[in-house]
Amino acid sequence: MEKKTTVTLKDLARKLSISVSTVSRALNNHPDISDLTISRVKELAEKLNYVPNLFAKGFRTHRTNIIGVIVPNISHLYTSTLLKGILEEAELNGYRVIISESNNEENKQTEMLQTMLQFGADGILLSLAKKTKSIHQVLETLQRIPLVLFDKVSEKVPCTQIVINEEEAAFNAVEHLIGLGKKRIAILKETENSFNSEKRFEGYKRALKTYGIPFNPKLVQSTEDISLNNGKRLTNVLLSQKVRPDAIFAITDNAAIGAIKALHKFNVKIPEEVAVVGFSNSINSTIIQPELSTVDQPGERIGRIAAKSLIEEINLPNKELVSKTIEIKTNLIVRDSSFKAL
Amino acid sequence: MEKKTTVTLKDLARKLSISVSTVSRALNNHPDISDLTISRVKELAEKLNYVPNLFAKGFRTHRTNIIGVIVPNISHLYTSTLLKGILEEAELNGYRVIISESNNEENKQTEMLQTMLQFGADGILLSLAKKTKSIHQVLETLQRIPLVLFDKVSEKVPCTQIVINEEEAAFNAVEHLIGLGKKRIAILKETENSFNSEKRFEGYKRALKTYGIPFNPKLVQSTEDISLNNGKRLTNVLLSQKVRPDAIFAITDNAAIGAIKALHKFNVKIPEEVAVVGFSNSINSTIIQPELSTVDQPGERIGRIAAKSLIEEINLPNKELVSKTIEIKTNLIVRDSSFKAL
Repeated sequence: MEKKTTVTLKDLARKLSISVSTVSRALNNHPDISDLTISRVKELAEKLNYVPNLFAKGFRTHRTNIIGVIVPNISHLYTSTLLKGILEEAELNGYRVIISESNNEENKQTEMLQTMLQFGADGILLSLAKKTKSIHQVLETLQRIPLVLFDKVSEKVPCTQIVINEEEAAFNAVEHLIGLGKKRIAILKETENSFNSEKRFEGYKRALKTYGIPFNPKLVQSTEDISLNNGKRLTNVLLSQKVRPDAIFAITDNAAIGAIKALHKFNVKIPEEVAVVGFSNSINSTIIQPELSTVDQPGERIGRIAAKSLIEEINLPNKELVSKTIEIKTNLIVRDSSFKAL
Repeated sequence: MEKKTTVTLKDLARKLSISVSTVSRALNNHPDISDLTISRVKELAEKLNYVPNLFAKGFRTHRTNIIGVIVPNISHLYTSTLLKGILEEAELNGYRVIISESNNEENKQTEMLQTMLQFGADGILLSLAKKTKSIHQVLETLQRIPLVLFDKVSEKVPCTQIVINEEEAAFNAVEHLIGLGKKRIAILKETENSFNSEKRFEGYKRALKTYGIPFNPKLVQSTEDISLNNGKRLTNVLLSQKVRPDAIFAITDNAAIGAIKALHKFNVKIPEEVAVVGFSNSINSTIIQPELSTVDQPGERIGRIAAKSLIEEINLPNKELVSKTIEIKTNLIVRDSSFKAL
């Protein structure tokens, strides 16, 4: 890899008869440099195949302009929208982004945190693996570079956390179902160790309590993997019980869509016999018939705010730890799965 | 970042009274090392917060065990399934994966190729940005480390390329529509510069020619961004023309779903009046009503094969360039949008 002759900033500067600092600022699109100079420098850099030496750059400025992102599962639909926001905001601020996944495994999360550190990332955006028991490596990382938690967070980590109003959002969804006159409201949720699922479950319970509806554990169905197929399966379980639900609140859109598919199969009328509400407002929620009522979870916005907060911390003159929680409001979107115009 | 005392392999070896090479192999799960030793080494490594020095490791073995992946758009549904396959295969072979996106911009693609090189990736999996005009930086990268193209490829790059039988898949889809007696078959495709779209368009034209159906340019609708909304919009255009189509072949599922939504709006019967076929077999294709006929594009499999091919090249003893094309077969899945049982 070192065989090629390396073109340096100095070479570019000499050939163009301008200063090294002008070349450097031109390559970084600095506002003080004219468009003409920028294009002259970039043309020559391309012609000579100039590759900026990131490590040298890192040593000079202590910066690589790289943000590392670690998510539990990169192929989840909602993760895609979070990443979109992160990438857009990073781009706007001149940062490159490298992304990796923990596959919801603590070991892999630790490994990727180390990799990002070694690569000299300026900061890390982390959405925690579901099975994170020890936050040791997260704390270690936090001592070295800025780290912001988003989506899957933990109150145990003293850093900036970007979350939505999980509990309140679920409360509002269940309150809406109660308002329709529903009394046997089931919930489809994750088994355990999921911050988001537990918060939504709390909101569900608080809504029942507030409106004096008895909590019935048989209406609570949990699964390890809250997928479309498991939504279908758990709804089959609910429909086979003596006490049938008259509404289903699923903590993801995919599970809610699975519920609708199961209800269709048994010719259960939606929303008259069973109303359904999901969570996310993913593109799928308007593809299914009837269209799905759901909590609009603004993934792109959360991603953008997470990236923005991290970049702010990277640029803080003093490197003290920042610990705050930013809660993003969500809205309930009511569609045909829980509403029928008379 | 260098303030902390660094624990080395040597420290671990001394404390456990074993050799440095045993420690190193234990940390890499080498088959010659007993499970007991592996767990003893790993426990101590964790306790002392040992962080492997990747660069030192890179210098010793010329390896970082990192694969870099660059895709045009990380938030596309189909990209997620490709990444899933890549991540699984890399994991199986002990490689870490870092992912970034080019946002379909050539500049950003060049930047990320350079970043991956500088960070010492052992190899790169690249799906080309749509607007890639010059393959200069791709060729540069290829001279230094193994690089495999997948999904969005170019015949101009002399390297391993993983593709599906785009042309044939489209031919089969259109042939199926012709077999239903359809004669005015429209296509929804991308404007230009898209390898996949052009290949599918060729298959469409070949099927018409093979069955003696005249090609009608008015039935060809193109868009820059082949999304659900543009599928809807282009279908509206088709329905407003004097010659209405009796079938629509969309080169993505999302555009096909947009077409179905537009047809619903105008109470056009699917498939009797207009049959619809998509491309991908994404999860959405079974959420829409009627369920969508589509080409099953095995994203996970393509991702796995791309990763596997790259890892093989990384491990080749001599570093000659490998140039071959691996074509993955697809199948047409016929559902209600193009078939009605009598």
